[in-house]
Amino acid sequence: MLPAKVLEQVREELTDWQGSHCSVMEVSHRGKTFMAAAHEAESALRELLAVPESYRVLFLQGGATGQFSAAPLNLARADSTVDYLNTGAWSKKAIDEARRLTARVNIAADEGASRYTTVPAAGALRLTEGASYVHYTPNETIGGVEFPYVPHTAGVPLVADMSSTLLSRPVDVSRFGLIYAGAQKNLGIAGLVVVIVHEALLGMARPGTPAVWDYQAMAKEGSMVNTPPTFAWYVAGLVFHWLLKQGGLTAVAAHNQTKAQLLYDAIDGSDIYSNPVARQCRSWMNVPFILADPKLDSTFLTEARAEGLINLEGHRSIGGMRASLYNAMPLAGVDALVAFMKEFERRRG
Amino acid sequence: MLPAKVLEQVREELTDWQGSHCSVMEVSHRGKTFMAAAHEAESALRELLAVPESYRVLFLQGGATGQFSAAPLNLARADSTVDYLNTGAWSKKAIDEARRLTARVNIAADEGASRYTTVPAAGALRLTEGASYVHYTPNETIGGVEFPYVPHTAGVPLVADMSSTLLSRPVDVSRFGLIYAGAQKNLGIAGLVVVIVHEALLGMARPGTPAVWDYQAMAKEGSMVNTPPTFAWYVAGLVFHWLLKQGGLTAVAAHNQTKAQLLYDAIDGSDIYSNPVARQCRSWMNVPFILADPKLDSTFLTEARAEGLINLEGHRSIGGMRASLYNAMPLAGVDALVAFMKEFERRRG
Repeated sequence: MLPAKVLEQVREELTDWQGSHCSVMEVSHRGKTFMAAAHEAESALRELLAVPESYRVLFLQGGATGQFSAAPLNLARADSTVDYLNTGAWSKKAIDEARRLTARVNIAADEGASRYTTVPAAGALRLTEGASYVHYTPNETIGGVEFPYVPHTAGVPLVADMSSTLLSRPVDVSRFGLIYAGAQKNLGIAGLVVVIVHEALLGMARPGTPAVWDYQAMAKEGSMVNTPPTFAWYVAGLVFHWLLKQGGLTAVAAHNQTKAQLLYDAIDGSDIYSNPVARQCRSWMNVPFILADPKLDSTFLTEARAEGLINLEGHRSIGGMRASLYNAMPLAGVDALVAFMKEFERRRG
Repeated sequence: MLPAKVLEQVREELTDWQGSHCSVMEVSHRGKTFMAAAHEAESALRELLAVPESYRVLFLQGGATGQFSAAPLNLARADSTVDYLNTGAWSKKAIDEARRLTARVNIAADEGASRYTTVPAAGALRLTEGASYVHYTPNETIGGVEFPYVPHTAGVPLVADMSSTLLSRPVDVSRFGLIYAGAQKNLGIAGLVVVIVHEALLGMARPGTPAVWDYQAMAKEGSMVNTPPTFAWYVAGLVFHWLLKQGGLTAVAAHNQTKAQLLYDAIDGSDIYSNPVARQCRSWMNVPFILADPKLDSTFLTEARAEGLINLEGHRSIGGMRASLYNAMPLAGVDALVAFMKEFERRRG
């Protein structure tokens, strides 16, 4: 979902961008107009997240899944040990890819015992001394589980797949060695992945790392070792500026917390809806919930759709329902969902 | 450059795509609407190129530069020999990346002696028996050099970077093991690379190939091992359907040849313009030309821009001028350029 104002701006300037007489989709990525827009997008992102000078911001292709490969290729040798926290489906995918690329993947925590409805206690991580990095997934999109804290790693670089949480609230970038996030949740559209990497971690790519994923090469070339995904980069820039206009991430976080609380309160206060996640680690972004009678799922979804409430199907791997409350979702959208849920319970509960 | 009609359609349906009440940029790639559009795009491409059943068509990220890595990772072992033809700047980039990933890169032809204004004679290729593949660049975008023939490789798979020529004319796909093309020339917008690969070449990816570039994994998952670049895929589909409406690639080829001939005739018939490329291998897509007095370059470009003739700067690596005559360039655009060139020569020649 994109902010309505961003979508409107894209349409307004689709055939004549910044007086160029052509579309942003058609201009050269090396031209002055695009280069200026690309730099502005980076500046806006740096401002939003207060990214320290010692970090590089890259705009790459291949999504977070591509970064599942790029992270070990850039930060670990083939014979290194890397630590991974397993808190659900996306952690698991990152781990699977790391296992293909690195000799030893140590699972520093695995929340399988709770069926991935919890995060590990801060002191319970079984970290490896001398690991190349510690990887975790601050927000699990499918399970709706979120870390309420940033793990301490005793100096080992911390790597985070922030695909479904970046820009939902302020984050202390200085705690991380590497942050990456696919753009299609809070940053824009599919086809772009944003990488924020500490400069001390550049230049370690192992031989054979594809050139377009070599962080140092990309940092040196302003993310233009190859033709970047210009349109997605442009849309991300519009989103970043929209977020600044909303008051930046402190304001955005308050708004997101309000939206999430409204929905969790409605779930917890009902007799037919439930959310399985431990309260202290419930996601602000993705709220899975089930009906006491799962036979009513399809009725719920059909009736919701008739009210204009779409995209509520749970992920195909777990079923049930899931509401995604990314930045672009207005409070009115959550209000409408909660009102529908109450009315549905009144009639069917 | 995109066809005007395609751009218009993108704008028309930007905020409400196929009755979804949202943008194609916002829908799930797993949803029925996008899946149908994705399949239709593939079908249209197969129809345009008459792609045999035994080939898979993939829609990936990372551009042709990503494929410089993916081709050796998928088709060659680390200790293999691969053959490369060097006909200019893009060949050279592919060769550099292959050298990082493969033990022995044999240069089967190098047109350096002509300063890359020629292609090798068909019988002059020094191919390696048992090579994993033979790679070449049918059209060099910067040099404006194009192969008027498809090399014979005695059974060794032929790999082609067709970024700047695919869909400019019919091509006999069955002659190739692997074709790849970045979308931003004739297929749509940056952020998408189309891969056409014979199924016999699937399943050979070496260990450590990033999952999002493993041809077999991507073929199995319908190019959705990760979230695909949905918007770029959608635009490509619109372009493919537009090309079918133009009469398919035979009609498109005739149109492109007419455009190119018009410009080459103007260059050859003048006293101040010249194109360095041997006549039998001049590109239909990219026409570099220089002025007898290079001090007039900037005057030429400024005056051209005032006439609405943009993007005529030569590549930053070689200077001079370059006209790109991709499919979306109408004949009227070439007419206008030729008229301007004649008038410029009359006044300054």
